[in-house]
Amino acid sequence: MRRRRIYEGKAKVLFEGPEPGTLVQYFKDDATAFNAQKKGVITGKGVLNNRISEYLMLKLEEVGVPTHFVRRLNMREQLIREVEIIPIEVVVRNVAAGSLAQRFKLEEGTRLPRSIVEYYLKNDELGDPLVTEEHITAFGWAATQDIDDMLQLALRVNDFLSGLFLGVGLKLVDFKVEFGRLWEDEQMRIVLADEISPDSCRIWDVQTNEKLDKDRFRRDLGNVEQAYQEVARRLGVLPEAGPMDLKGPKAMQ
Amino acid sequence: MRRRRIYEGKAKVLFEGPEPGTLVQYFKDDATAFNAQKKGVITGKGVLNNRISEYLMLKLEEVGVPTHFVRRLNMREQLIREVEIIPIEVVVRNVAAGSLAQRFKLEEGTRLPRSIVEYYLKNDELGDPLVTEEHITAFGWAATQDIDDMLQLALRVNDFLSGLFLGVGLKLVDFKVEFGRLWEDEQMRIVLADEISPDSCRIWDVQTNEKLDKDRFRRDLGNVEQAYQEVARRLGVLPEAGPMDLKGPKAMQ
Repeated sequence: MRRRRIYEGKAKVLFEGPEPGTLVQYFKDDATAFNAQKKGVITGKGVLNNRISEYLMLKLEEVGVPTHFVRRLNMREQLIREVEIIPIEVVVRNVAAGSLAQRFKLEEGTRLPRSIVEYYLKNDELGDPLVTEEHITAFGWAATQDIDDMLQLALRVNDFLSGLFLGVGLKLVDFKVEFGRLWEDEQMRIVLADEISPDSCRIWDVQTNEKLDKDRFRRDLGNVEQAYQEVARRLGVLPEAGPMDLKGPKAMQ
Repeated sequence: MRRRRIYEGKAKVLFEGPEPGTLVQYFKDDATAFNAQKKGVITGKGVLNNRISEYLMLKLEEVGVPTHFVRRLNMREQLIREVEIIPIEVVVRNVAAGSLAQRFKLEEGTRLPRSIVEYYLKNDELGDPLVTEEHITAFGWAATQDIDDMLQLALRVNDFLSGLFLGVGLKLVDFKVEFGRLWEDEQMRIVLADEISPDSCRIWDVQTNEKLDKDRFRRDLGNVEQAYQEVARRLGVLPEAGPMDLKGPKAMQ
């Protein structure tokens, strides 16, 4: 059975789902960085991110954060609700790293005076620029109420995940989330979409500050696959799999 | 009589004023662009900006916008109140131009859906980066109340100046203003500071869209001095001066 491909991104593919209003989200092993100027493969990443994102979305739902997640289908696929993605990446930062550290010449690892929320436009052609609420509302990418909803949800996600990660010896340095508009009974609400994984979070070991996220790929630090596995292991979702299961994106190739 | 030099910027010098709580603001002919990578002299600019900024600050005071301006002293100097400058440049844009047009690949000259207010950190070393309210408050550059005050004042300045310029056949494309904290009777209020001139505004002829501002210098369009003179002439503040008066920054050299 061939399913209709709705959208292919850098790390995931979206297929038509089994019933209206659903999609199948397929996790690839492909990795990109610096607006896709750097490309590579992280073997097994898709399998691990599928598990990690499943786990985190389910736990967030349990504390009342609405998400697009329905259920995991298999090693690399999960069923999600179809939403209208808001073209804004919401970034929450607890510790200076990445572009924030660069922009303000802060030493990476410096705890910020408080958590900082930033918005970036999802637009590869423009290089995902930092945008302000003024830009977002003036150009109609989201309404003020949408921004308020995203902000409140992103701060809840930050609180919950900071605690959850700390409980397993990990520090949530920063993360990026995306949101979508979901219509039900003619009512619109904003729900967490996309994924939450070491692709979209900076996660450091609390003791050693070792990076356990995509920065290992971005900066050629080595042991990339092992970092993703370590996060999955600490969260208790590392599949007991033979190497073939991690390596083979069977459904796709 | 030698006065103590308090601060020297790219286009102005601040001297100790004749009484406590005052400063003398001296307007130079020096021009810089692109974070001072490009440098030059616009002959007579200091004389004209002193007049233009005097006129605009006085008119803004008349409609209730508080400013640091006291009175013009001579061709290149004005008396101002000493304020604590807030290290944020507030930019108001009505038409796409400059960095906004670049950031979002908008055609220069496109009327924006509505006026957009942006904040930039005044920090040459960092290249005056775009910042959000989150950055401003988290790093303590200004408080939320300060930002609200600056925003409301900047929008009033935009309304008033858009009308004033339109009345003399000019289009206010965008402008940058700075604000300072002024203490009086143990009360702090935020007032407009710095200057308002073709150095800090983009001003186009309504009919021809000819640029009559510092972009002529930034982009090597020629007739730079003439553009500043034309703005002064339309505002009715062009000094009836011999060429020596415009050329000679006597007090300084």
